Amino acid sequence: MQRLLDEIIRPPFDNDLLLQWHDSVVLPVSRRCAFTTDSYVIHPLVFPGGDIGKLAVCGTLNDLAMVGAKPAYLGVGFILEEGLPLGTLRQIVDSMAATAHQAGVMIVTGDTKVVEKGKGDGIYINTSGIGHIETALVLHPSSIRPGDVIILNGDVGRHGVAVMASRENLEFETTLESDCADLSGLVGELLEAGFPVHCMRDLTRGGLATALIELARESHHGLLLEEASVSVSPAVRGACGMLGLDPLFVANEGRFVTYLPEAFADDCLLLMQSHPLGRNARVIGRVVDTHSSCVILQTGLGTTRRLILPSGEQLPRIC
Amino acid sequence: MQRLLDEIIRPPFDNDLLLQWHDSVVLPVSRRCAFTTDSYVIHPLVFPGGDIGKLAVCGTLNDLAMVGAKPAYLGVGFILEEGLPLGTLRQIVDSMAATAHQAGVMIVTGDTKVVEKGKGDGIYINTSGIGHIETALVLHPSSIRPGDVIILNGDVGRHGVAVMASRENLEFETTLESDCADLSGLVGELLEAGFPVHCMRDLTRGGLATALIELARESHHGLLLEEASVSVSPAVRGACGMLGLDPLFVANEGRFVTYLPEAFADDCLLLMQSHPLGRNARVIGRVVDTHSSCVILQTGLGTTRRLILPSGEQLPRIC
Repeated sequence: MQRLLDEIIRPPFDNDLLLQWHDSVVLPVSRRCAFTTDSYVIHPLVFPGGDIGKLAVCGTLNDLAMVGAKPAYLGVGFILEEGLPLGTLRQIVDSMAATAHQAGVMIVTGDTKVVEKGKGDGIYINTSGIGHIETALVLHPSSIRPGDVIILNGDVGRHGVAVMASRENLEFETTLESDCADLSGLVGELLEAGFPVHCMRDLTRGGLATALIELARESHHGLLLEEASVSVSPAVRGACGMLGLDPLFVANEGRFVTYLPEAFADDCLLLMQSHPLGRNARVIGRVVDTHSSCVILQTGLGTTRRLILPSGEQLPRIC
Repeated sequence: MQRLLDEIIRPPFDNDLLLQWHDSVVLPVSRRCAFTTDSYVIHPLVFPGGDIGKLAVCGTLNDLAMVGAKPAYLGVGFILEEGLPLGTLRQIVDSMAATAHQAGVMIVTGDTKVVEKGKGDGIYINTSGIGHIETALVLHPSSIRPGDVIILNGDVGRHGVAVMASRENLEFETTLESDCADLSGLVGELLEAGFPVHCMRDLTRGGLATALIELARESHHGLLLEEASVSVSPAVRGACGMLGLDPLFVANEGRFVTYLPEAFADDCLLLMQSHPLGRNARVIGRVVDTHSSCVILQTGLGTTRRLILPSGEQLPRIC
């Protein structure tokens, strides 16, 4: 265990704070902080466009970014199953370190447990994160107002379909990659530019539709979603057709919705589209003072229907 | 999943901050914070004196306390295995809530994942914690000095033996209970009383000996440990004899060592002994300017030997 830590797990994460080597790490922080935790149990561990390590870092950075925080510190908890190949562990740890480094955050504390073969699934990772809140905005569902537009930063469904295809060994004509990405840089630019954002949320296992349904319920406002404005790549559309999935409910790991007053929509879109993670940003809907707490889908055919949560997950173990 | 969260997991943890229901929670914090994370994979889930929930809260509170922090916030990540009885989950969640409540800390953010039967072991819990540092002391191995005495707050080996006995269905004449406890209250009293503590560490899976060996190595100072001063209950001694375990290396979850200058030892002992978790506190050794980085055990027979780390864990899945 000591060798595992000293040779594989710690070296890629090296930084002055981690080197405190004590029961907890002592950190300088700002007076208002964001705090979040998430466990990652995705299967398979490596998929086109990412791996569980990149996902575990990006997912937690994104959760911090969504409340307007600048991610600063991560804690990592590994649960390793006996028999996990050391090469796989090394790849995952290196991927975490690279993703954290690129985002300018430090992995400052961690823990590793080993369970017997048959009591895990290779590796489970928990990441907890702390971010500094420098904005005076309160990014929260309760800040959402009728008249807000909703901007989505790209096409949907890539993560879910890429993982499912890789899990089931499905082959498509083009390799579909997960959209797994750290959104904190783009979010930071939006906030620094001073846009009066009301709320943000990243789309995860339940897809775009689940995020919007939850936000409608939490804000008590109605929401009109224009189906034709939601970008879905031909590969995702084809795969969803084949697998019987609705792309609106398929998982994403690099997409988020931004709610802000309509007057700022054009400038916000311009900024987003100049960023690699927002090139396909579009207005996909608007908040209205009817249809309280509901999401109304305006279909390409001109009809409307209310979106409701499915009773189960479309794809389990997707994050 | 929504019902699981709404009916079992969230209600016991209810507080205003948790009710922010967003990707991260926004917290007021002090300028210097402690941050830590730990995963708990103990088997069995319930043992005499505690359960995985109480352990997961106490363990993280203790890690915060050891750097002189007053625990404030916890994040919780559950990995549930399909088929976990809801009654067991409820018992564990209630136990976490009660332990957190008693310690005056809030569970402010969380995450729940479910894995298929055969890919977990009932429940794994990760807890991450944030604590406020109000003391000006730097509690760290590098603060340890020759002339320090080492105070231990009670007898050793209860947690490891209680869990092992329960795992193997061993019966002893008296039921041996784990020492699993939240130490942050006692530590807070020591710091408020103004004792110039140099370092603290809680004893966990490797027992007293492992903690002392690590601290000797990290402080570069030698340490004389008086075997006769280390309290071991007759039940633990008997069980260790039967199981072939050395009580010095057996896990504890409610014991910690305190390093401070000898001049303060008597007053510190008095305070500790007036607290329920320190009634059997004793000076067990002292830091010396010889034997650099080593722990020298002075046995009851008058001989001495160097303590070294065993090559594996005596008891896996103990925390």
